[in-house]
Amino acid sequence: MTIAQEIYPVNNTRILLKQRPFGMIKPEDFEIVEETMPALAAGKARVRVVYLSLDPAMRGWVSADENSYVPPVPLGSTMRGLAVGVIEESNAEGLKRGDWVSGFLGWTKLIDVEPKDVNVVPQVVPMEAYMGILGLAGATAYYGLMEVGEPKAGQTLCVTGAAGSVGSLVGQLAKANGLRVIGIAGSEEKCKWLTEELGFDAALNYKTDDLEAGLRAFAPEGLDLHFENVGGAPLQAALHNMKAHGKLIICGLISNYNATEMPSGPELSAIIKKRLTMQGFVMTDHLDRFGEFFQKLGGYMSKGQLKYRLDIVDGLESAPTAINRLFVGSNTGKLTIRVSEL
Amino acid sequence: MTIAQEIYPVNNTRILLKQRPFGMIKPEDFEIVEETMPALAAGKARVRVVYLSLDPAMRGWVSADENSYVPPVPLGSTMRGLAVGVIEESNAEGLKRGDWVSGFLGWTKLIDVEPKDVNVVPQVVPMEAYMGILGLAGATAYYGLMEVGEPKAGQTLCVTGAAGSVGSLVGQLAKANGLRVIGIAGSEEKCKWLTEELGFDAALNYKTDDLEAGLRAFAPEGLDLHFENVGGAPLQAALHNMKAHGKLIICGLISNYNATEMPSGPELSAIIKKRLTMQGFVMTDHLDRFGEFFQKLGGYMSKGQLKYRLDIVDGLESAPTAINRLFVGSNTGKLTIRVSEL
Repeated sequence: MTIAQEIYPVNNTRILLKQRPFGMIKPEDFEIVEETMPALAAGKARVRVVYLSLDPAMRGWVSADENSYVPPVPLGSTMRGLAVGVIEESNAEGLKRGDWVSGFLGWTKLIDVEPKDVNVVPQVVPMEAYMGILGLAGATAYYGLMEVGEPKAGQTLCVTGAAGSVGSLVGQLAKANGLRVIGIAGSEEKCKWLTEELGFDAALNYKTDDLEAGLRAFAPEGLDLHFENVGGAPLQAALHNMKAHGKLIICGLISNYNATEMPSGPELSAIIKKRLTMQGFVMTDHLDRFGEFFQKLGGYMSKGQLKYRLDIVDGLESAPTAINRLFVGSNTGKLTIRVSEL
Repeated sequence: MTIAQEIYPVNNTRILLKQRPFGMIKPEDFEIVEETMPALAAGKARVRVVYLSLDPAMRGWVSADENSYVPPVPLGSTMRGLAVGVIEESNAEGLKRGDWVSGFLGWTKLIDVEPKDVNVVPQVVPMEAYMGILGLAGATAYYGLMEVGEPKAGQTLCVTGAAGSVGSLVGQLAKANGLRVIGIAGSEEKCKWLTEELGFDAALNYKTDDLEAGLRAFAPEGLDLHFENVGGAPLQAALHNMKAHGKLIICGLISNYNATEMPSGPELSAIIKKRLTMQGFVMTDHLDRFGEFFQKLGGYMSKGQLKYRLDIVDGLESAPTAINRLFVGSNTGKLTIRVSEL
């Protein structure tokens, strides 16, 4: 072990949650600490983090809400985050130097893990794929659309946050399953990407387009399915344009996450008039099925049916400021921190 | 037929919808017309209406919303309404003088119907039962709770509008099926009626009680089921107090029905965090199953498990003003117009 310490990096940087944010996340809500790693313990492996995923759900994880689906990140501990990295050194069975592993490694450059903490992932795709299609976004899009939504060919789907990491995959999965798809996004550039690159049938810019009229024109008979990532006006417009017995899949309500007072929601009388079902889900309930989802997603990938783009920001220290790009919608692709070079 | 005209009443009073209400329904939105009934045509029977049901759904029927589950009542035609009455004269096969019939007879003293327009109902219960337990309220409570909610013994249920015609039956049906039940109503008198007469485990007065704290105290583990008749603050409190994977049955949102601008709804992030399902339904989809529901309800009735009270207002001409008692919550029981003496 003394030898290992001399060979492998021992200086680490971690980012701790210092205080619970009020409204938007601020850099001073975090503390960056430098430390020396201890000798690697028996049964553990040291991971060097390469890519760290920044996700809207993080806004919930730093809140004090004890009723949420995962416990809040305790003050003073490493900020939680899904990441992928390389094993640098191992005293653990089943993990060897050079393996790629994914898991909730956190906002850190190095971390010592037990085999149960990580999944070894195949090195047959670029490592970035584990931040997107074969990561939380892919699993979320697959489970939410295919299992909660139960789509059928010929149906019509609307997805909000359509240029986001989950939304862009939801739309493409729906197209691959024979649905008509309209996406709602926040810029002309994003809308063009959806229709010209990803094969969406139509896209609306929620900042400039009349959403009610746009949805009505696209789906005069109403929407069979609506996949919600954002909340606010687009959700209200979708509710007004659902087909009878339609389903709303509630994946995210990012427009609410930084609210400092409880925001209101949409007027719900369409749920009665249209006999709608609205259903929420949480991916951490289904961690044991991610392998199954990734196998299905790999099938679509290999047929060229899923395109994806990352928005990569360099340096772990950028994370506390970069995360707000999710909430103002300025990221163009899956927001990812490159913590180290592969 | 000439003889019949001499024997049976021929002077009728009907109430027409004159204009679409803005906000609360006003008497001047209707027109009362006196008319002479024509001779009874072949294949028809003349019904004398005895009880007319006034229901929150009527606020929707007089609106111009073409997207609703039933077409709006056309201006200048008899106001729609579920009623029960007696056949006075018949030229129709299957209907005979003295039969009791129920159906959408409308706001009228007399109406000539074809057999397909009405159901002959057994004269084994007081006729008022067809306004309540064996009427729209009973069918709605039974279908909404038992088929949409799929309750299981030992679960916990909250119902709003709990002293109303549907809510009071939902709570009693849930008790009869082994659930713990809390009701939310709008006065101390109503709350006492729920707990002391109907067997609810607890009741909250939304005008004076802290609903969030009250629900938390009643169900520290959360609510399995929530049956919504009202909307507004009680729905938000229920959302915050649901158990993971719980279900919200959306039957009515009466607090919205008279709004002149689109009201907002509850903040929905609990749908994600608690993986909730919210489902709406419309009873006119299930008219063909009312007989089946009434048979089940009759079973509970015969065991003394369903109590019910009517709030009877005399005279068809009272309907245009009496209906607003539903929206201010001043009715104490199923609001019913006695159009004539049985």
